[in-house]
Amino acid sequence: MQDRLGAAKAQVQAALDAAVGALPAGELRDAMGYACAGGKRIRAFLVMESARLHGVPDAAALPVAAAVEALHAYSLVHDDLPAMDNDDLRRGLPTVHVKWSQATAILAGDALQSLAFGLLADPAVGDAATRRLVAAFAQAVGGAGMVWGQALDIAAETAAAPLTLEQITELQGGKTGALIRFAAMAGPLIADADPAPLAAYADAVGLAFQIADDILDVTGNEDVTGKRVGKDMAAGKATFVSLLGLDGARAEAARLAAAADAALAPYGEAAGNLRHLARFVIERDT
Amino acid sequence: MQDRLGAAKAQVQAALDAAVGALPAGELRDAMGYACAGGKRIRAFLVMESARLHGVPDAAALPVAAAVEALHAYSLVHDDLPAMDNDDLRRGLPTVHVKWSQATAILAGDALQSLAFGLLADPAVGDAATRRLVAAFAQAVGGAGMVWGQALDIAAETAAAPLTLEQITELQGGKTGALIRFAAMAGPLIADADPAPLAAYADAVGLAFQIADDILDVTGNEDVTGKRVGKDMAAGKATFVSLLGLDGARAEAARLAAAADAALAPYGEAAGNLRHLARFVIERDT
Repeated sequence: MQDRLGAAKAQVQAALDAAVGALPAGELRDAMGYACAGGKRIRAFLVMESARLHGVPDAAALPVAAAVEALHAYSLVHDDLPAMDNDDLRRGLPTVHVKWSQATAILAGDALQSLAFGLLADPAVGDAATRRLVAAFAQAVGGAGMVWGQALDIAAETAAAPLTLEQITELQGGKTGALIRFAAMAGPLIADADPAPLAAYADAVGLAFQIADDILDVTGNEDVTGKRVGKDMAAGKATFVSLLGLDGARAEAARLAAAADAALAPYGEAAGNLRHLARFVIERDT
Repeated sequence: MQDRLGAAKAQVQAALDAAVGALPAGELRDAMGYACAGGKRIRAFLVMESARLHGVPDAAALPVAAAVEALHAYSLVHDDLPAMDNDDLRRGLPTVHVKWSQATAILAGDALQSLAFGLLADPAVGDAATRRLVAAFAQAVGGAGMVWGQALDIAAETAAAPLTLEQITELQGGKTGALIRFAAMAGPLIADADPAPLAAYADAVGLAFQIADDILDVTGNEDVTGKRVGKDMAAGKATFVSLLGLDGARAEAARLAAAADAALAPYGEAAGNLRHLARFVIERDT
């Protein structure tokens, strides 16, 4: 799996560099490129693997993988803003509003979202596939997806009571789950096949991913994760760890990794990389 | 023209209300609906008229008109933020970050951009048309279009010297011109026809529109325009009025209205509504 993850990483970085590099030079473009550098590229890998499972050529999958990572980059830039999570460190570097300004961070995020949708319209993707992808992407991102989850998260900060397990599961299903789900469904969406098995896989992996994040917020090393740790804890935020305990959270992540594995049954041996990913997600240290 | 503008206004408001109404209830959805209410709907009208000139049925044009207005609404919400233009009044009402919060304004803008792209994927538009529209829309909005123009505008505020006429024309070509150009080109884009005449029309109308805005900033009545006037003047910002004088700006707007008229020659009598619009844009008082 690491070979393929590395390959997806390099391909997607080249695609993002080309897309950003085609824009007029200036601070906005610099900030967009900065925000698109690095990252684990798990979402891109999901797109490439799900495409491969459905016989979709790399040339059609790559713009979609780049779109998902550009969208993810926008969401991080906006989430880090002072009015949102107020983070000064991301991937071990100053966040965009710290390095440039809040205005540049807002605009770079906005332009990265446009760029992401534009990538879905790459001629290699095909007309019908582009239409299906754009509709699903808008759903995954907007007022019923990622942005909705982030709004719930912001609201929770000033809520009278900490969130329940049900509420936090719903919130994370939007905030981090929706885009992971889209990435995993990209292959069947392009190929016009049934996306249900990969959607079920992604829902389990997405939640496991978030639980692992909460565990890292408690046990992680800032030098390794490249972002502030202990933040949620200090803020008294409800997390999977605060609700389930550290051992309970680890057990739930393991249970979800097994559920993700089971969801891949229709693909048999061919889904080996996605099986590895589900384990990687809960065992990572960054 | 007023009849058709009124009809487009009602149709587009209904389409936006339906799209926003389909989202999960909450503050985010409320803020999105609030941001989508009102406005002159000139961009929607451009889409509907350009579609009509190319024999595109209303059912295919309407989602595109709604997309353009949702996108315009997002841009206003983000432009009004304290880190950007810091406006507290819009269409005679408190801006989104004043009524709710900066976080909600950032998120509502983000979700409106997603909503806009999603509307372009309406099945009534058609697969190939959706792909052409998404590509052109991303170009009009992102790091080479509207967002780029806004970034130039923000940079100009802290620049050592006021902008030249050439620079301000380039800036406005992005900030307000790019979306107006997209709206006017929507018909040929859907119909896969030559967009050049409507692009030339839109470039002239878009610039005339901005010059009229600058004139209103000097001569306008806050009660009528529904937004703060005299702001640019007070900030010492270069505008078409500061660069050309009031009479010079009026003459340039009139010259551009005539150029817009001339660009419509290939459409003959059928383009009567677009001819009226070009005059309306420079004669408006809001």
